[in-house]
Amino acid sequence: MPIVQIDMLEGRTVDQRRELVKKVTEAITESVSCPASAVTIIIREMTKEHLGQAGKLRADS
Amino acid sequence: MPIVQIDMLEGRTVDQRRELVKKVTEAITESVSCPASAVTIIIREMTKEHLGQAGKLRADS
Amino acid sequence: MPIVQIDMLEGRTVDQRRELVKKVTEAITESVSCPASAVTIIIREMTKEHLGQAGKLRADS
Amino acid sequence: MPIVQIDMLEGRTVDQRRELVKKVTEAITESVSCPASAVTIIIREMTKEHLGQAGKLRADS
Amino acid sequence: MPIVQIDMLEGRTVDQRRELVKKVTEAITESVSCPASAVTIIIREMTKEHLGQAGKLRADS
Amino acid sequence: MPIVQIDMLEGRTVDQRRELVKKVTEAITESVSCPASAVTIIIREMTKEHLGQAGKLRADS
Repeated sequence: MPIVQIDMLEGRTVDQRRELVKKVTEAITESVSCPASAVTIIIREMTKEHLGQAGKLRADS
Repeated sequence: MPIVQIDMLEGRTVDQRRELVKKVTEAITESVSCPASAVTIIIREMTKEHLGQAGKLRADS
Repeated sequence: MPIVQIDMLEGRTVDQRRELVKKVTEAITESVSCPASAVTIIIREMTKEHLGQAGKLRADS
Repeated sequence: MPIVQIDMLEGRTVDQRRELVKKVTEAITESVSCPASAVTIIIREMTKEHLGQAGKLRADS
Repeated sequence: MPIVQIDMLEGRTVDQRRELVKKVTEAITESVSCPASAVTIIIREMTKEHLGQAGKLRADS
Repeated sequence: MPIVQIDMLEGRTVDQRRELVKKVTEAITESVSCPASAVTIIIREMTKEHLGQAGKLRADS
């Protein structure tokens, strides 16, 4: 605990995901006072053809 | 808001996903009175070897 | 299959959720050609103090 | 996009959730270069009787 | 890892959830060879007015 | 119902997933008294570069 699921568009580098995990874990430990070891982060990437916003595929907007 | 996550078997075309996003967004805006711009839809596709129903892999049934 | 998870702000009536299930199921069956019996919809409601947008709690914006 | 779902034990204050949203949004915008307005965070709280770790209810450990 | 999310209708007892965590953890450790300490299970309960099946609220069927 | 989502590291065989579905379904039916036909299991696999634990990518630890 806490378990974090992040769904985002594909295309980020491994370094960006590394930074994402580091900074999001810090943000959580600082705000809800839990140890970093308690934080699990799942990152899921999707294509623009798997994301809908305002009724349209993101690939179409 | 609302955030919609749709997990379904792989194999649909981009046009089907396009239609899915359009129609599901309409369905939501009409039923819970929110603007289309508020609706985000995440579509995740899986293989039949990643879906279990009634104790079996869908690939086996 | 498909499994649909809808996270949205609390406050809708049972009738609105009834309509939401009906219309979203129709939208899915029409767009990805699956039977209505295959569609499961989970609706989760949250307070404005459990939703963050643009860095703020929705309750604060 | 990105959509963040945080599942954690109940018991945090509104201020902690406010801080959580602020800091997690900053962490994401800094690491994957997206605007804060693109970030949606859903916070779900659960009891210790709804969390299992290492085969036990958290309420029992 | 693995992270398990179980969404089910409300109404089970704490003992049933205790048994659920115990048995699901055993099932996972035996089938994918991971230690029990690696398994986290989140249990979410919902009412029949928050579950849609075959186009209807479960409360209506 | 129940709907089970299992997120785990990639690398398991189809047989392991087959066994996972069989055993997790049995575990659920035995503990919360529901028929096997009611249980749906979604298995999602991820790389070590998409999993964060204790502030680090699993690929780095």
